[in-house]
Amino acid sequence: MRLMYLCSALLLLILLPRTCQGGNILVFPTEGSHWINMDILLQALHSRGHNLTIIRSSKSWYIKDNSTYYSTYTVPAERIIDEEIITRAMLSIIDFERGGLPLMSFLHFSVGMLGALTEFHTTVGEYVSAIIDDRELIRMLNDTKFDVVLTDPCWGGGPILAKYLNLPLVYNVRWLIPEEAHFGIAPSPISYIPIAQSRCTDKMSFFQRVKNMILYVVSQMQVHVAAKEVYQKICDKYLGPDEDFYQLLIDADIWLMRVDFVFDYPRPTMPNVVYMGGFQCKPPKPLPQHLEEFVQSSGEHGVIIMSLGTFVNELPADMANEIAAAFAKLPQKVIWRYKGSRPDTLGNNTLLVDWMPQNDLLGHPKVKVFVAHGGTNGVQEALYHGVPVVGLPVFFDQHDNLIRLEDRGGAKILTLSTVDKDNNFLKAIQEVLNEPSYRMNMQRLSRLHRDQPITPMDNALFWIEFVMRHKGAAHLKPASLRMSWYSYHSVDVALFLGGAVLLVFLTIFILIRCLCNTMCKPKVKRE
Amino acid sequence: MRLMYLCSALLLLILLPRTCQGGNILVFPTEGSHWINMDILLQALHSRGHNLTIIRSSKSWYIKDNSTYYSTYTVPAERIIDEEIITRAMLSIIDFERGGLPLMSFLHFSVGMLGALTEFHTTVGEYVSAIIDDRELIRMLNDTKFDVVLTDPCWGGGPILAKYLNLPLVYNVRWLIPEEAHFGIAPSPISYIPIAQSRCTDKMSFFQRVKNMILYVVSQMQVHVAAKEVYQKICDKYLGPDEDFYQLLIDADIWLMRVDFVFDYPRPTMPNVVYMGGFQCKPPKPLPQHLEEFVQSSGEHGVIIMSLGTFVNELPADMANEIAAAFAKLPQKVIWRYKGSRPDTLGNNTLLVDWMPQNDLLGHPKVKVFVAHGGTNGVQEALYHGVPVVGLPVFFDQHDNLIRLEDRGGAKILTLSTVDKDNNFLKAIQEVLNEPSYRMNMQRLSRLHRDQPITPMDNALFWIEFVMRHKGAAHLKPASLRMSWYSYHSVDVALFLGGAVLLVFLTIFILIRCLCNTMCKPKVKRE
Repeated sequence: MRLMYLCSALLLLILLPRTCQGGNILVFPTEGSHWINMDILLQALHSRGHNLTIIRSSKSWYIKDNSTYYSTYTVPAERIIDEEIITRAMLSIIDFERGGLPLMSFLHFSVGMLGALTEFHTTVGEYVSAIIDDRELIRMLNDTKFDVVLTDPCWGGGPILAKYLNLPLVYNVRWLIPEEAHFGIAPSPISYIPIAQSRCTDKMSFFQRVKNMILYVVSQMQVHVAAKEVYQKICDKYLGPDEDFYQLLIDADIWLMRVDFVFDYPRPTMPNVVYMGGFQCKPPKPLPQHLEEFVQSSGEHGVIIMSLGTFVNELPADMANEIAAAFAKLPQKVIWRYKGSRPDTLGNNTLLVDWMPQNDLLGHPKVKVFVAHGGTNGVQEALYHGVPVVGLPVFFDQHDNLIRLEDRGGAKILTLSTVDKDNNFLKAIQEVLNEPSYRMNMQRLSRLHRDQPITPMDNALFWIEFVMRHKGAAHLKPASLRMSWYSYHSVDVALFLGGAVLLVFLTIFILIRCLCNTMCKPKVKRE
Repeated sequence: MRLMYLCSALLLLILLPRTCQGGNILVFPTEGSHWINMDILLQALHSRGHNLTIIRSSKSWYIKDNSTYYSTYTVPAERIIDEEIITRAMLSIIDFERGGLPLMSFLHFSVGMLGALTEFHTTVGEYVSAIIDDRELIRMLNDTKFDVVLTDPCWGGGPILAKYLNLPLVYNVRWLIPEEAHFGIAPSPISYIPIAQSRCTDKMSFFQRVKNMILYVVSQMQVHVAAKEVYQKICDKYLGPDEDFYQLLIDADIWLMRVDFVFDYPRPTMPNVVYMGGFQCKPPKPLPQHLEEFVQSSGEHGVIIMSLGTFVNELPADMANEIAAAFAKLPQKVIWRYKGSRPDTLGNNTLLVDWMPQNDLLGHPKVKVFVAHGGTNGVQEALYHGVPVVGLPVFFDQHDNLIRLEDRGGAKILTLSTVDKDNNFLKAIQEVLNEPSYRMNMQRLSRLHRDQPITPMDNALFWIEFVMRHKGAAHLKPASLRMSWYSYHSVDVALFLGGAVLLVFLTIFILIRCLCNTMCKPKVKRE
């Protein structure tokens, strides 16, 4: 399969210098783990000879000012969500999840987080306003003659900026302020498409479908209140009163979707959605020497790696101790990405690291299990390398992502509320280590995922450059984008035809009645 | 762009001998023009080292018994639609269309053809029964250990046979017994997806949407009566009473769809639909010497080519004379594929041929206009080569296909009822020749169509072999295939939630009433 990827890369090397001579790409990224995968895409675009300009906030906590492969415009921002706020929020979510029921946890997230989300999008809105109000910056952006805007629409600023600058738009997307992106563009029957945080699969019982429908209605209200209204005000101010924000949002030329149908459940899609799930995955590079030595020291038992992602830097002390104690009982070696204070129960077999080359480790033959929080990036990497997962989801889509692996027999999920009880953590790891089906199923998914006519990254690059070459991809946008809801759902047509049928029946009824009356009346007269 | 196709072919040459060592493919084709494009796919599969076995009827009028690249099982068939019947039917349709109004023409087709369609599918059903009843044939088919069944589901026999033999199924498809194939598998909002023969675009007025809805209901009834019931009886007989034919029909692993979104309007699609529109197109080969000499003799004026497809071998004499007379007035040379008797008015500039290398002619720089009936194959070829079209649609989807080109400014449509009046034919050809926008628009569509990360043919071959490698593509089939209509549309959930809301309101109402009664009664007593 590697040969296929190599050949595919070769093909692009032959093809692309001819089809694209290095364009200008304006990038409006989203922070946090979203930046990590945007950054990978940017490095690939840079290696294809494109000039990348990134708009970042002066308070950005991930996006460095300038770099070897991109230049930046730094916008002085009064405030923007920073890493410390996120870390504190994570700890409070973990505390809550440990005590809460799934329903309560959802209500907590939906209602309790509504205020936080509204504030979050308001902050992003202020940031976008600051960009457009900076006349000097806008002049420079206009002068640069960009070919395309590349953005992650988890933040709503990119589409507004693209419209203001009148530029084609490409999404690197999974979430759309913040509903699952497909819901914005493709028909999405709630009967078999699980809503984020529903913890359902695509095969639902009646009451799961009821729950899914309720969650759908709630999430639609959340999106409306927390985001649409906020951004609509900015549209009104800078784009005129006729510009509907949501229409703008779903009018992107190409949607590079960070999933594929080995990971996600098959569902309706649209012609301008390009699936690039696993685009960040690649064959493993050799590990740094100290890591390689540590991994090799595991002997036949192999290695377990654990990471709870970008946001979760530390865990409550008792939970961390429980996890460390479980690891200490295993014959495997453990590499644990953990920034919190060192747990007291940490065994000699466990190495705490601030950061680890996750893709290279997952591709190492000695790595047997991945303990993960279930972020999309990590799950796709586990899937690419065929490594079974013990899932410890924290918030948002993480539980859903892990359910997709569990449903296919490749993962075991623990919840924060039970992970530190009855040796659950230790038992789960031992089960995934000792039951061959977990690994076999992940290897099967890996084979399916890798068997594509073109790699996800090459596909993504092709379509970004397609939009640059053709100044958009209008021919792939459905006419439905320009339709009112009642036209789209044929409500007016149904009413008209229903009325027509009713009229016909009524006419026949009246005619028959008149006929009866006419035929009866003479009798009365005769009498 | 040709370099891209070459490289892509090179890539497949490198990749595919490793990934597929020549499998066994069972082919159940549809006759007529459908066989032409199936044949092209089969030749490509043969060149990739696969063994092809075709099931054909002893009355087949297109599929030859054995060949250098496939072997056949010939089934003695009592009757099957033959070429003569088709030719006669075509002439009667042409006669009708010349006199009819569009609405009448549709009613004629829908109602008048219903009997013919039912008879047609009954004949195919008998043919399938004859295959399954032939125990020796079935034993041979089982012994051959086929990897996949490849079929065109315009005839309903393929899916039944695949199920009977328990084999994975790939479709080479545009029509599904005989509705547009997307309607079988993907959500299809009638508000912007024009029904076959509606002659609408994806931007419809209110009354066009009403018309489209009526046509949709009629076509669904037609499919049900003319085909579903016929094939269901065969399912009941050979697969048991629990097997629903339509569920079987939409359960194919991969749908190789003979359109793309440069030709067709963007619309919802599904993960297991692969677009291979234009897969039959390729760079032109040199013409036979006599044709090349004829083409070159046209000088700066260039050449017009005309073909009304596989089915229309001749036209009514007066219409043929009118067309020939119009051609005779032009300075261009004309190549006309026509099997009828030589029109009296034929000019010296017009060459009548029984057959022409259409793809090679369309790719010739001297060819200026293509006079076509609007079959999918021809329209895709015109689009690939960027040649503007004068359309003369005869029946079924031909007018719709041409409307897709006309809507994008690449074609001018004439109807059979007006083609021979007021020099319409001559005027249309002169307009398309002299107005540069026609050619520019077709060239733009051609550029868009050719700009794909992998050629349609390579994509089709990849996915056929994918199904062979993985014994199906179950992971790409949506869960909706196994759902009842009321679950899929959440009717039960809506009723349940509606009922629950009603119950809550009713309870509140009763409680308030009780409360009022309790609070009012003492007053009454006091009085």
